[in-house]
Formats: sequence, C-alpha cells, structure tokens
Amino acid sequence: MRYNLAFIGFGNVGQALARLLTRRRQDLAAGYGVTWRLTGVASRRRGWLAGADGLDVEVLLNGGNAIAAGAGALPDVQAWLAAAQPHVVFEMSSLQASTGQPAIDYIEAGLRAGAHVVTANKGPVVHAYPRLRDLAESLGRGFRFESTVMDGAPIFSLFRSCLPLTRVSGFEGILNSTTNYLLARMEAGADLDQAVREAQTLGLAETDPAADIDGFDAAVKTAALATVVMGQPLPLNEVTRAGIRGLDPAEIRAARQAGRPWKLLCRAERTATGVTASVGPERLPEASPFAQVNGTTSAVHFATDTLPGLTITEHDPTPETTAYGLLADFISLVSAQEVTALAAS
Amino acid sequence: MRYNLAFIGFGNVGQALARLLTRRRQDLAAGYGVTWRLTGVASRRRGWLAGADGLDVEVLLNGGNAIAAGAGALPDVQAWLAAAQPHVVFEMSSLQASTGQPAIDYIEAGLRAGAHVVTANKGPVVHAYPRLRDLAESLGRGFRFESTVMDGAPIFSLFRSCLPLTRVSGFEGILNSTTNYLLARMEAGADLDQAVREAQTLGLAETDPAADIDGFDAAVKTAALATVVMGQPLPLNEVTRAGIRGLDPAEIRAARQAGRPWKLLCRAERTATGVTASVGPERLPEASPFAQVNGTTSAVHFATDTLPGLTITEHDPTPETTAYGLLADFISLVSAQEVTALAAS
Repeated sequence: MRYNLAFIGFGNVGQALARLLTRRRQDLAAGYGVTWRLTGVASRRRGWLAGADGLDVEVLLNGGNAIAAGAGALPDVQAWLAAAQPHVVFEMSSLQASTGQPAIDYIEAGLRAGAHVVTANKGPVVHAYPRLRDLAESLGRGFRFESTVMDGAPIFSLFRSCLPLTRVSGFEGILNSTTNYLLARMEAGADLDQAVREAQTLGLAETDPAADIDGFDAAVKTAALATVVMGQPLPLNEVTRAGIRGLDPAEIRAARQAGRPWKLLCRAERTATGVTASVGPERLPEASPFAQVNGTTSAVHFATDTLPGLTITEHDPTPETTAYGLLADFISLVSAQEVTALAAS
Repeated sequence: MRYNLAFIGFGNVGQALARLLTRRRQDLAAGYGVTWRLTGVASRRRGWLAGADGLDVEVLLNGGNAIAAGAGALPDVQAWLAAAQPHVVFEMSSLQASTGQPAIDYIEAGLRAGAHVVTANKGPVVHAYPRLRDLAESLGRGFRFESTVMDGAPIFSLFRSCLPLTRVSGFEGILNSTTNYLLARMEAGADLDQAVREAQTLGLAETDPAADIDGFDAAVKTAALATVVMGQPLPLNEVTRAGIRGLDPAEIRAARQAGRPWKLLCRAERTATGVTASVGPERLPEASPFAQVNGTTSAVHFATDTLPGLTITEHDPTPETTAYGLLADFISLVSAQEVTALAAS
C-alpha cells in the first residue's frame, strides 16, 4: 500500500527521518509492501505546506521553496490535514515541557483526520497519554512515541510486544545524554561552562542548556516512562528534581578516579498508592552497572515481576537514531494495519 | 479459546512452567482470552503420558503417578501427540549439543501434528533452524525459542517485533551464567574445583561441568544467536572455542583487583562471506561495560545498521525466568493466531 506521510517539524529529526525513509525506500517495499510519499510538511519557518500529489523531498532537504517542492501553503493544521490527506502524521514539533502544547492539539487533529500519529515529542506523553491512547483506540488508529525516551532504542515496543503479563515495579537509569556528556567532560578536567560550550559545538546542548543541566529533560523522560510502562500517569511536578549545576568539578574528577562516578540518575518506584519518581545526581557504588555508561550513551534498568532485572543500554545515538525510532513506529503501525485490513476484508 | 498444552520434559524448567501457567491462569484469561489445560507430559522417568480431558497438574508437580493424574501411557511421540491433541507443544528435553536430537524430531512431529512448538532447547536452533522455521511457516504454525539464549530475556522477540529493517553486523556478550559465576567465586578466592562444587550445590552446574567450563554451552548459544539474528546458519564446529579451565585463579583474582577482570566472551562478526564467531576468556579493558556483569547475570551487545549499539542485560535469572520466556512465546503465538483466525473468518 502507498502511504501519505505528513511531517510536523522539519528540523534535525524531521530531516533525518526524510533521509532515512528515502534511503530505505526499497527495503520498505520489499520487506513490508510499503511505499510512501510526503504530502505535507509543516515548520515554523515554512508554515503549513501540503501537496496531495507528493512533495519533492530532495528539494525540501536542500532548503528549496514551497513552489519548487510542489506544495501550497495552508492557514492551519486542519486545512493542512485536509489537503495532505495523510495516513501517518509524524509529530516532531519542539517540546513545551510545561504543557505539551501545541503538540497535543496536533496529535488529536491528526487522529481525528483519520491518520496514525507517531511523535518524537515527550510533552504529549507526559501531559495527555491516557486521553490520546484512548482517542486513538476509539478511532481505530495508532499513537506511537518510541523516540521520546532513549531515542530509537526499543523501550515502549519492548513492553508492548515482548514482555506480556509483565508488571514493572520500578526503574532506574541515565536518560539525559547531555548531562552525561557534560559529566564526562568535567571528569576529564573541564568546568561546567567549558563543557557546555563543547556540547553546544557538537549539537548536544541547546543555546539555553538549563533544561538539561537542571534535570528538566530527565524529569520529563522519567514521567513519560513511568506513565506508560508502569501504567501510572505521573504529573511532571511530582517528579522530585535536582540537576548537576551544583556539583563541584574537582569532586566530579575525584569521584571518577575513585571508581565511583557521579551520574544524573532517574528513578521511579511503585508504592502502595502509586509511583514515586526522582531525578538527581548520585555518586554510584563501585560495582554499579551504570559506572561505564559514558558520554551520550544512556541506559535504563527495569525491575519486574517476570524478569528479576532487565537493563537496556543504547550507545552513542545520533539524530538518525531518533529517526529510526519513528520509522520503527511507522512500520509497526503499518504491519498491524495490514493485519487489521486482512481481518476486515 | 482453550488451548491444549503438551510438555516434552518435566524437569526444573517444565515444572517451573507448569507452576507459572497455573499462577497466571487468571491473567491469561483476562489479558488474552486464553484458557489452557495440560493434555500431555513426557519425560524420561514417566514416559509418554497423555489425557485428552486434561491432566491434574498438581498431582504431576507433587510426583503423583500417571493414573492419579488422569493420564495413559503411550508408546511414542506420534501416539502421544494423537492422544494429547495439543495446540501448543513445549519442547524442553535435554540438550544434545552435537546433533540437536531427538528434540528436532519432536519439534517436527509437533508441527506436523498441527501444534505450535515452543522450545527451550538450543540444539534444534543450531542444527535445524532454517528447516524448522520453513516447516512451521508452510504449516501455518509457529516455532519459537526465546528461552534458548539468556533465559526469558527478550532477544529473539526484540529483533522479530521491535527492530524492523535492522541488520546485525556483530555481537559480543557473556552468555554462559555458570562460568560467569565460577569466575566470580575464583575472584573471591576459590579454586576451580571449589567453585564448581558451590555451583553444583546451587544447581548452577551439572554433575559433569565440562559443557560450561570448556565453553561448549557458550558456543551453542553463540551459534544459535548468530543463526537467527544474523540470518546466517552457523555450524557449531565453526565457532572457535576456548573455556576457562586453563585460567590461573591467582591471575583471575589479580585481574579483578586491577579492574580488568577475566570474562568468557562470546563474539560474532559479519564478514564479506558469512559470519565468524568465537568463545574464549578475555581480560576486559578497564572501561568495558561487561566488567560489572557478575554472578549469573548475562549480557549481550549488538552492533547494527539502525542503532549504533544496543546492549541487553539480564540480571540474576532463575528457572522461573526460563519458564517466563516459554510463556511469552506462547502468548505471542496465541496473539498472532487470534489475528490469523480473525482474518480467516
């Protein structure tokens, strides 16, 4: 089947996804009977562009204008969806951690327009997961978000597809790559400002690095993970939070030399009444499996009632890794849809 | 739907599976609409027991005789399958690493009798994977084997369900729990014989520990993993193999104290013409993520073309963990079958 795809957001991740879809075009056709065209792209700079006959992906990737790409500009998401007629919307707008908007509205609009929605945005998972999940189900569509935690590493799909009857009693992990990189640089002798500048040069840290340094990003990921895999919606303000700003670089160096490094740990634990969660710097015990989770690598350990302990570690992700998580979500939706279509025929 | 289940093998794993199925009876019904009864049990001691009306699991677990359990004794696997009428056969006979028999014949007989087959036995995967996979597919049945490598941790299901379009270029890991436990005891001061006796007391090592110590078990797992996740059938005799027998306990202790412990590493790598694989003791580099994979914990790192690196670590497995892998395979087959039945109706 040929799928119309529409992208909300065309920054690093959106462009990486466009390139990945293009590079994997033949594999998708051969492995899954899937062909695709891009019928809509929206971004702050370009506005809401749609073209029902398919846009020229190469032109868009090279920064060409809408007319060259075969697109018309629409006034809002509703008109854009009507024009693009997407089977799948990839929602990749910037995170607004405090509300999850406007991504939540975009996802809802996409589902109501009859599309599956795949998002790379943690906000909607933290602020509206039960509602969006139920809406998608009631409409017979899928809502997927693998890339929101640990990039493309399979976390949500692992619990959805591979660990039936499993109840997660808690998890701990290193979920924010940027702070983990900053700590590694400080272990090697940098102060926080130097480390941040290096991270910015590498594209790992934003112009304002506060979301990473003060533990916000890690807290959002912790809330998203707890909400979905522990089945317990966890408001962001219930995640106890501390960052790495106050750590002394000399102490960070000394701790690593002693084999007990500082890491920004995310934790969640099931209690009698719900889930408690926290983000904060911890000095690891000597034998911790997290001691060698360095640089941009991230890792999470789950305690469950079926497997005593399971740890997933993702090494050295890139924007393409995030794009792969979106692609994997797309394929899983498509495979499920093929089966559903078969069942209905 | 009610499933007739039949067990080949009723040792530690078979009994753990019977207890797990019993304990999860309500969850299976509520979560998957699955009810079950045991209609056949075969073991060296009991012979081929079947009862189409269902056997008494409690009686069997308590060592009761066949008549008390409601079973009749049959002469061979064919007559047993005809009497037990299983929808799913759990093949849990002892490993014969050099041939994979008689497990291969049992699996083939189960499939030809119309059952799905789930095995905990590595032999058939190493010696007959492509043939059994194709036979199952041609018969519209499933052949699953999650528990053969890293117990119940999702490895095969991860690649099957969560990592579409992923090509594994290689892996490395600690796949044999027993040697990993022996090395830990030797690091703590034991010699090899003392460590083996402790492992035997804990049920971790066989009366003849050679299969573990000399790296056979690790080599079989390496071959199974390469065969399935790298899509490259790898004969056992092509896995270069060394064990831990020749290591000096004093050197093992000193290496751990220096932060560069000895581990029995399994490796496979894709080459221009196929896959090369090896098992052997290695002294880990200081920053190795495997340095803290201790005791019975196991871990494997995959290099792929979609995720730069993904490591799965399973902590402290028990026979019940292996049983969970079999249960997860059962549920995945049942879920797929429900969909197929829906599609066919």
